[in-house]
Amino acid sequence: MRLLLTAFDPFGGDAINPALEAVRLVSEKIGRFDVIKLEVPTVFGKSIEAVATAIESTQPDVVLCIGQAGGRYEITPERVAINIDDARIADNEGNQPIDKKIFEDGENAYFTTLPIKAMVEAIRDANLPAAVSNSAGTFVCNHLMYGVLYTLAKKYPHIKGGFTHVPFIPEQVARRTPVAPYMALDDIRRGLEAAIAAIDKHFDGDIDVNGGKEF
Amino acid sequence: MRLLLTAFDPFGGDAINPALEAVRLVSEKIGRFDVIKLEVPTVFGKSIEAVATAIESTQPDVVLCIGQAGGRYEITPERVAINIDDARIADNEGNQPIDKKIFEDGENAYFTTLPIKAMVEAIRDANLPAAVSNSAGTFVCNHLMYGVLYTLAKKYPHIKGGFTHVPFIPEQVARRTPVAPYMALDDIRRGLEAAIAAIDKHFDGDIDVNGGKEF
Amino acid sequence: MRLLLTAFDPFGGDAINPALEAVRLVSEKIGRFDVIKLEVPTVFGKSIEAVATAIESTQPDVVLCIGQAGGRYEITPERVAINIDDARIADNEGNQPIDKKIFEDGENAYFTTLPIKAMVEAIRDANLPAAVSNSAGTFVCNHLMYGVLYTLAKKYPHIKGGFTHVPFIPEQVARRTPVAPYMALDDIRRGLEAAIAAIDKHFDGDIDVNGGKEF
Amino acid sequence: MRLLLTAFDPFGGDAINPALEAVRLVSEKIGRFDVIKLEVPTVFGKSIEAVATAIESTQPDVVLCIGQAGGRYEITPERVAINIDDARIADNEGNQPIDKKIFEDGENAYFTTLPIKAMVEAIRDANLPAAVSNSAGTFVCNHLMYGVLYTLAKKYPHIKGGFTHVPFIPEQVARRTPVAPYMALDDIRRGLEAAIAAIDKHFDGDIDVNGGKEF
Repeated sequence: MRLLLTAFDPFGGDAINPALEAVRLVSEKIGRFDVIKLEVPTVFGKSIEAVATAIESTQPDVVLCIGQAGGRYEITPERVAINIDDARIADNEGNQPIDKKIFEDGENAYFTTLPIKAMVEAIRDANLPAAVSNSAGTFVCNHLMYGVLYTLAKKYPHIKGGFTHVPFIPEQVARRTPVAPYMALDDIRRGLEAAIAAIDKHFDGDIDVNGGKEF
Repeated sequence: MRLLLTAFDPFGGDAINPALEAVRLVSEKIGRFDVIKLEVPTVFGKSIEAVATAIESTQPDVVLCIGQAGGRYEITPERVAINIDDARIADNEGNQPIDKKIFEDGENAYFTTLPIKAMVEAIRDANLPAAVSNSAGTFVCNHLMYGVLYTLAKKYPHIKGGFTHVPFIPEQVARRTPVAPYMALDDIRRGLEAAIAAIDKHFDGDIDVNGGKEF
Repeated sequence: MRLLLTAFDPFGGDAINPALEAVRLVSEKIGRFDVIKLEVPTVFGKSIEAVATAIESTQPDVVLCIGQAGGRYEITPERVAINIDDARIADNEGNQPIDKKIFEDGENAYFTTLPIKAMVEAIRDANLPAAVSNSAGTFVCNHLMYGVLYTLAKKYPHIKGGFTHVPFIPEQVARRTPVAPYMALDDIRRGLEAAIAAIDKHFDGDIDVNGGKEF
Repeated sequence: MRLLLTAFDPFGGDAINPALEAVRLVSEKIGRFDVIKLEVPTVFGKSIEAVATAIESTQPDVVLCIGQAGGRYEITPERVAINIDDARIADNEGNQPIDKKIFEDGENAYFTTLPIKAMVEAIRDANLPAAVSNSAGTFVCNHLMYGVLYTLAKKYPHIKGGFTHVPFIPEQVARRTPVAPYMALDDIRRGLEAAIAAIDKHFDGDIDVNGGKEF
């Protein structure tokens, strides 16, 4: 079995992207999965195209995209992607869409088909904070998650897909004012490997535990 | 024109709900709107039924539901509701659904039809913090927002609908450990009145400003 | 009896200082106190001189200085001032001392002589968040608190003195990114009046409740 | 040269204390220092006695005490200890003093004699967040820091002393609600070793950079 693991390049003025740094360190064999890695440009449109091309060429069983959520404490598997681009900052090619649909013929939202509750539990079992997130934002992360789930729904309904956000790493905040939450790079790697192992173990269905939020 | 303004009763161990307290203080005439107020039980299912019944009987032009988001700093008009109930805590009748669809025949998500960017700007113009939110959570607030937008989409496509979260008020946090963000009750009232005035002013379409988040 | 109530002018790029705005609104008669108000420049040295001059001319029973602590949630009576100036930003005349003693012949620190526990309780009884603070920082606020307590210890041991920090007001954060805690201006006024009433009521000694922090 | 490095045992309901875990991992030879380690009970009085006894027996050149500050993001060398015990929670033997002086014949406060600015810079150079702290609280951490600096001032003025707080480690917050800041245990070890190396390098005086706070 194959798992396509993607990560964005740096954006928003940061010199590094912890998602990309961590993905580079992730083991290439986890459970039944051969892990295939892909760097993705932080650009509206092109990011989806890059992953769609890789899906076509690698025919994976799972697509898991990783992005940075600077400000979050936990590794956060995302529950849902919504059909909207609304950019507070420009992407890496200067695009800054406001309230544009990603695909005119897409659903309002797509739910991940990954076992996010099991992923969260596995990360916590690795002694790292994790939580289900109910919003991937409205920038390129949500855009890519939506585009992947749209692509899978339309063309590859047998392939599972999802997105996970990771925190800053310490070197990004060592001199930042104000400081922000962070997680050690090696812990992010461990957390992602635990999450991928959980996808393997719970490939046929998620565990039945609550993981919601009041708001 | 009529605007149906709803608010939940207290939940989660709190003795008061600032949404309800503020709604009681909101003016009954704002712009072209006669404001019709409704208290809604913080209960899965029954909350939707209560508002659906009121829509039927009052035939409003707008439905705006208000809920508490204890922990947020800003008044936050919600962008989208998703078709899922996932309760971390029990509702006021002990229901605690996990990953259940709200309506089997509903869309994965519904976007608000209110001018949320204009609402945010109007609240800020009233010197109060506001922000678009991209998640109403997975508890009764999202449940009601989804149920209202589902009901409007199915039966009353000419009626606009949406949801806005408000912070704690000071008396809820005066002795809370740890403390949490709060807004004065009268400021919440002012913010809601400014938001409703913006719905009136921008009834035919939202303003074109970005209001997104990276994650 | 007379209470000298001081507040700084705006600093650090802010157009207003909530301490000054609130002090202007505070009642001029609270309990036994006639409240005498003084605006103080946010300048090392000159701030102490201004208050020392006012102490000399008004011969108050109590000196209470108010400053802004943008980022705090609570109204925070300060416990102690330390004999150090260490400025991360420049004061309003460009001074930016590093690790300089305020008075060579002063104690390492002076404890407030105001009933700060009773002040905190009184503010909470007014349904507003309050807490004892164990650090007034190392900028002009600590500088003035230290200078006042030094002056009182050296020349006027019968006069009580202290310092209280107040949060931002909403208009300062309505468009700030990231947002920060705030308190309504009228609530700050109410909190300060409650604190002053507590100084009157507990003039002869503080209440015996814990109010410390682990760190 | 010898550096006495102390850490508290767990307290406040936590099963582990990251200060103790990290101290156990710190190298026993850093620069010119032989590092002598000591576990200290989280108890008023006994903690000071334990360290005073170790100072007597080991005759170190430096005493550096480490404690947990759960909630802080950074490793925080402390600037000052104040002559007060005010316990919000009980220590490990049930003591909960309120507003008691630590030593009747002590100064109001003692400033650390360690080069805290250089320690902060060294930790940041190790790509980890660090900051000078102006309050060690009013619980056993401040108590011990005060007691050590009092002891050194009275009996061993040639020995330097200070205190540094460290964050939670991930396993303490993996299932905590709400989550809190944390730092990887090995990063805390690295940070402490960098700080100790800075004490060695700047033994004769701190660097001249600002490190203060407005409040």
